[in-house]
Amino acid sequence: MTAHDIPRLFACADAMADAARTAILPYFRAAHGLENKAEHGFDPVTEADRASEQAMRAIVAAHFPEHGVLGEEFGDTPGKSGYQWILDPIDGTRAFISGLPLWGVLIGLSYEGAPILGVMDQPYLDERYSGWAFGEAAGAYATTRGERKPLKTRMRAGLSEATLSTTDGSLLRNAEGEAFNAVRAQAKLTRYGYDCYAYAMTASGHMDCVIESGLKSYDIAALIPILAAAGGGVCNWRGGDASKGGQVLAYGDPRVRDEALALLERAAS
Amino acid sequence: MTAHDIPRLFACADAMADAARTAILPYFRAAHGLENKAEHGFDPVTEADRASEQAMRAIVAAHFPEHGVLGEEFGDTPGKSGYQWILDPIDGTRAFISGLPLWGVLIGLSYEGAPILGVMDQPYLDERYSGWAFGEAAGAYATTRGERKPLKTRMRAGLSEATLSTTDGSLLRNAEGEAFNAVRAQAKLTRYGYDCYAYAMTASGHMDCVIESGLKSYDIAALIPILAAAGGGVCNWRGGDASKGGQVLAYGDPRVRDEALALLERAAS
Repeated sequence: MTAHDIPRLFACADAMADAARTAILPYFRAAHGLENKAEHGFDPVTEADRASEQAMRAIVAAHFPEHGVLGEEFGDTPGKSGYQWILDPIDGTRAFISGLPLWGVLIGLSYEGAPILGVMDQPYLDERYSGWAFGEAAGAYATTRGERKPLKTRMRAGLSEATLSTTDGSLLRNAEGEAFNAVRAQAKLTRYGYDCYAYAMTASGHMDCVIESGLKSYDIAALIPILAAAGGGVCNWRGGDASKGGQVLAYGDPRVRDEALALLERAAS
Repeated sequence: MTAHDIPRLFACADAMADAARTAILPYFRAAHGLENKAEHGFDPVTEADRASEQAMRAIVAAHFPEHGVLGEEFGDTPGKSGYQWILDPIDGTRAFISGLPLWGVLIGLSYEGAPILGVMDQPYLDERYSGWAFGEAAGAYATTRGERKPLKTRMRAGLSEATLSTTDGSLLRNAEGEAFNAVRAQAKLTRYGYDCYAYAMTASGHMDCVIESGLKSYDIAALIPILAAAGGGVCNWRGGDASKGGQVLAYGDPRVRDEALALLERAAS
């Protein structure tokens, strides 16, 4: 087992999150040029998105020039070590351009393909969710307006006690939509529209389950160590590794995971 | 025309919002007793909800003992004047119990049945949206972390440029659901899950249109003066008065309203 220098890696991640805040906040709720990334459909990218990723890449280059970086905006920069930083400079750009403070900066670190460290930062709220899920030193905590508290998911015996979330129910179509609706019918409460923030609320013990599809690795890699170290986890709809994205289930209590998987399985790809 | 003492009425509304903050914040993201208000379905009410309304009612009694109060939790207390305060101590209780900071305190004031003043407060974010829509002194502003700025909706030529929001699309069923989907098909972007906060974002020029159904008067009365004084408005699905709740359309630009109404009309009750 490789001995990772956790404090040094976290210092880098925190410096990246700080730099992203500085890059992004002047653009939030300000009228700046948006452009459409996709030829069809609506996929907004703000200048903030690019500024944020550039700022974070500069920090990695300064701290760990041998590390690789995969970012939503500027693609894959291979490294010369087993480490790869996986960055979504603004997860939830639709929330961002709607003035809603529930987007986040996602900073994941994988080692030889496995996520080991993650940070989700919400600059406007001054909230940072961090986790480390490798070996005995695993831990997760939230730093909110200067106050640091351990993250702990809550216990829920099953879906009937669970609060479920997905970002946009209309993105789950056909078999996926039917499977999601089957879970929703069992859940106590369903909420929509929170992107990465729903995962942070699950890690914090305020929600219990997030179900999404069509994610990219940079949408989820950072969140996996946070959820795992908080007592829950993230898996795909077959219960396997979710670090590459696709169909994702995040949960606070394994009993909720098991009930949800039994219903999602039929639509698992 | 009655001469309303605007500064004194606003001083009362601000004192109410301050008192609600003090009452609510200790409960947010804390594990406290929840109870089900409805025998069937899920309609959470927190102790915070009751504490907030009681605190606000005490302020009205001290400032304006002759005013009436209608509140979500404690019903209708008739007054001996034309003024009635209309209170939703926590709008968005489902967001509240999910740890999401997009609920709000709604404080409306009507005079002889017409909404004249409104405040929407978000205690956790330290954001307050205020409006006064009676006569020439009309105005709306946001006070965010101590900084006060005028509220102004943004111009949008029609739905194809508009960001649309509703709290829970699954609440709009049958003809209402079809009408909503027709609007959604025309809109540039649709977001879910923000309760009163979506109205504040429309007043702020970050979103353009909110469509809901089944609202109570205390869900909407406070928001009408804010939207109107910011340059937009709130109407029912026939374009008429929305202050009693029901089917509601809030908009930033009348051109967006007109297009939306043409599609919603078929399901107007």
